[in-house]
Amino acid sequence: MSEVLKIFKIGGGIIDDITQLGQFLAELAQVSGRKILVHGGGKGANQMLQRLGIEPQMVEGRRITDAATLDIVTMFYAGKTNKQIVALLQAEEVNALGLSGADGNVIQATRRPVRTIDYGFVGDLNEHSVNTKLLEQLLETGLTPVLCAITHDGHGQLLNTNADTIASSLARALAGSYTVELHFCFEKDGVLADINDEASVIPQITADQYQQLKSEGVIAAGMVPKLDNAFAALEAGVERVVIENALRINEPVKTILCRS
Amino acid sequence: MSEVLKIFKIGGGIIDDITQLGQFLAELAQVSGRKILVHGGGKGANQMLQRLGIEPQMVEGRRITDAATLDIVTMFYAGKTNKQIVALLQAEEVNALGLSGADGNVIQATRRPVRTIDYGFVGDLNEHSVNTKLLEQLLETGLTPVLCAITHDGHGQLLNTNADTIASSLARALAGSYTVELHFCFEKDGVLADINDEASVIPQITADQYQQLKSEGVIAAGMVPKLDNAFAALEAGVERVVIENALRINEPVKTILCRS
Repeated sequence: MSEVLKIFKIGGGIIDDITQLGQFLAELAQVSGRKILVHGGGKGANQMLQRLGIEPQMVEGRRITDAATLDIVTMFYAGKTNKQIVALLQAEEVNALGLSGADGNVIQATRRPVRTIDYGFVGDLNEHSVNTKLLEQLLETGLTPVLCAITHDGHGQLLNTNADTIASSLARALAGSYTVELHFCFEKDGVLADINDEASVIPQITADQYQQLKSEGVIAAGMVPKLDNAFAALEAGVERVVIENALRINEPVKTILCRS
Repeated sequence: MSEVLKIFKIGGGIIDDITQLGQFLAELAQVSGRKILVHGGGKGANQMLQRLGIEPQMVEGRRITDAATLDIVTMFYAGKTNKQIVALLQAEEVNALGLSGADGNVIQATRRPVRTIDYGFVGDLNEHSVNTKLLEQLLETGLTPVLCAITHDGHGQLLNTNADTIASSLARALAGSYTVELHFCFEKDGVLADINDEASVIPQITADQYQQLKSEGVIAAGMVPKLDNAFAALEAGVERVVIENALRINEPVKTILCRS
């Protein structure tokens, strides 16, 4: 049995609330063993774009990452948010090290090809994207890597990349070396059987049960892509995926997804 | 004789010019062996503060780093500039890894105490500030650390810190493990004997010669703090300090400062 590695992903909601972010990081500091944190962006980058009068570029209702947007997003994700998280973790005695995908070539992406829409400077990942060797070296040195949602193409271009995708790509790539748990942390306690009842957390869902719940329409539409992605990670060797409340990661209430 | 480590410091002028920055990084990629890059900020942070209508806080003619300024400076230095440099070095096949002082607790500062002026979120370094162990581990892994001028206090607070000070503190701290060369790269070819003659580069200056040149008024006033700092680094065990043109680091014209 290989060592356990816990990969946590937090999203925009918690990043926008410094008090909640501090609470989450204090909880994270209590998690023992090897861990990696992946964070998305918050609303800060959008607010900054508005303040600077940079109009969002939209095509068919979807946001395009043009050069001006990439600049601001890089500043927020890799600069402000990443360094704020790292400094707060250091204060909790977690030896955090912030990374974009360019740092140590830790995640190399390819710019999304233009089919009907040119998404701009957006990076997609593949099975060779993650530099597992460097991440293993950092983890074995006792460091906690903190990854933001910025990658690079290896030719000098930074790219905006989905943080959920980064977290699940890391989990899959590192499943060869560790027993990987992938934790998606958000504002609810887990997957709810009844979207109107916060107490209806489903404790465990297997792949078979998920197919059934999905066909019955029990799973909220917004959760489907996240859970499809989660079960794909399980298929690819990740030991378990956990959906939990970012402020209660050390409490038992959560949804554990497992292969069977 | 220990391994040679070359520490390069670049300032704002070159960072503001993406073509020159690319040229410098291509030259840096040609430098063999262990190396570290320290970069200051450029004008970008100031321009952003202006665009956002954040008035510079000045006390007795000196800039104060208030919370809003620290935010923007962190975004620019640790986000935009640092990641742009790292991505460009990766394209040159240099395995660069960007760091603020908070990352891996690599540089821990103390907030400058308030005497007559409160400088705000500004960090000063001391002889215990540099985490030499982690830097050595990164260097021996084949990585090139790229440090921006943001540090932290170990209690969750990021701090703005002078890049020259960071470079010389790194050089002093790592002089116990490596034969350290500290390279200050700027827009001139070296220390000039005649400030009006760009060809009057002094090839070598010893500590004794420096005292004489300074007393004769040959050294330009603006160079004095930099050179005082440089000779202090030599006294503290740094092997040599080089003052050179950022675009010609691999050419022989430069000023080499040495103890004797």
